[in-house]
Amino acid sequence: MNILIVHAHPESKSFTTALKDKAQCVFEEQGHSVEVSDLYAMNFNPIASQNDFANLNQPEYFNYALEQRHAYKQNSLAPDIQVEIEKIKRADLLIFSFPLYWTSVPAILKGWIDRVFVSGLFYGGKRFYNHGGMAGKKAMLCFTLGGRDYMFGENAIHGSIAEYLSPIQRGTLAYAGFEVLPPFIAYHVPYISNEDRQNILINFEAYLNDLQNLEPLTFPLIENFDEKMRPLP
Amino acid sequence: MNILIVHAHPESKSFTTALKDKAQCVFEEQGHSVEVSDLYAMNFNPIASQNDFANLNQPEYFNYALEQRHAYKQNSLAPDIQVEIEKIKRADLLIFSFPLYWTSVPAILKGWIDRVFVSGLFYGGKRFYNHGGMAGKKAMLCFTLGGRDYMFGENAIHGSIAEYLSPIQRGTLAYAGFEVLPPFIAYHVPYISNEDRQNILINFEAYLNDLQNLEPLTFPLIENFDEKMRPLP
Repeated sequence: MNILIVHAHPESKSFTTALKDKAQCVFEEQGHSVEVSDLYAMNFNPIASQNDFANLNQPEYFNYALEQRHAYKQNSLAPDIQVEIEKIKRADLLIFSFPLYWTSVPAILKGWIDRVFVSGLFYGGKRFYNHGGMAGKKAMLCFTLGGRDYMFGENAIHGSIAEYLSPIQRGTLAYAGFEVLPPFIAYHVPYISNEDRQNILINFEAYLNDLQNLEPLTFPLIENFDEKMRPLP
Repeated sequence: MNILIVHAHPESKSFTTALKDKAQCVFEEQGHSVEVSDLYAMNFNPIASQNDFANLNQPEYFNYALEQRHAYKQNSLAPDIQVEIEKIKRADLLIFSFPLYWTSVPAILKGWIDRVFVSGLFYGGKRFYNHGGMAGKKAMLCFTLGGRDYMFGENAIHGSIAEYLSPIQRGTLAYAGFEVLPPFIAYHVPYISNEDRQNILINFEAYLNDLQNLEPLTFPLIENFDEKMRPLP
């Protein structure tokens, strides 16, 4: 397998970074090939803008998705976007590694998605969900957060963690065709002991060694909807 | 009322921008005072990093939230963050105006949240939800998207739109203490006629004129949870 880890933490000594390093190490021991896009280290630009295109197809009215579609065809996307696209094309498994910021990904990772998941390749027309451009590839989230696990769930104070992950797991990864594996979540990280952190790393290693047995999350199948994407009876 | 509109669209002729302009115009006609943070026009930096602090409290191990708390107290946050914080302090109503990118906000707006919603002011300790730092203020989303309205809902192809909004409405705005008004959503915008767009603007004006009668969304009350934030029986 080729694995791409997209990592978004500003501190190289962070526990989030330790999890990323652990994943890289475990995968390489298994004989897989690992690439890492360390967005802070790369000083990745997260702002979707006119600058992402060598030239504009419709300069009088800027539509980001339409320009993506045009530039992808013409091979005129900004070089930093093109490089990331090539990494994803090579990858069988995409991992997002990040600290949860405001129950979502940090802006630098959101911008990586906004700019790299281009219209025309990742989706377009009826190509989404199980027909999305990335069908056949897997993806998975690995993230850290400050809250305790019991604070999330149906009647818990913050509600279900799955709901906060919807934009990324369903609206982004599944929409683009990825098979989404259950996330690995490290709770309460800033407040736990070093021993507890070591235990999380041990659990993460076991999780990664069992990856091929994990049941992917379920999302809609295009076949269950009609031409206008209304549910079939 | 003082109103702050945080706007995140790269095209000044976009319909999202027309909605923002309409809101500004309606509020000013009502005698309110309106400030706009036009993030693309400001070239706002969305990356949370060490550069956000004049000096670091713990330079050997960078923890973003802890540095925010320290710098807010010391008045040593980066000037562009401080300016936005002052705007929010003045505001009675905060509006996010944006095109939905990957069922979420564009990275430039996510980064505005990551950097501006500082620990120690917006939240901290037991100050969240109805005890959050912004208690007493209102907030509301106004956004455009490509999908049709029937594509969202319980059994619809994309599921409930409310679920995608959870990270921003619940995990961010409600968490920080804002009373969250129901969002104004403009569907299918890139594909509709100019007449349909004019009708959306008319509906938006009626929506804004009725703002004081809108029932806010409901979120947990801290009083229903114990000291450790477990639900009370």
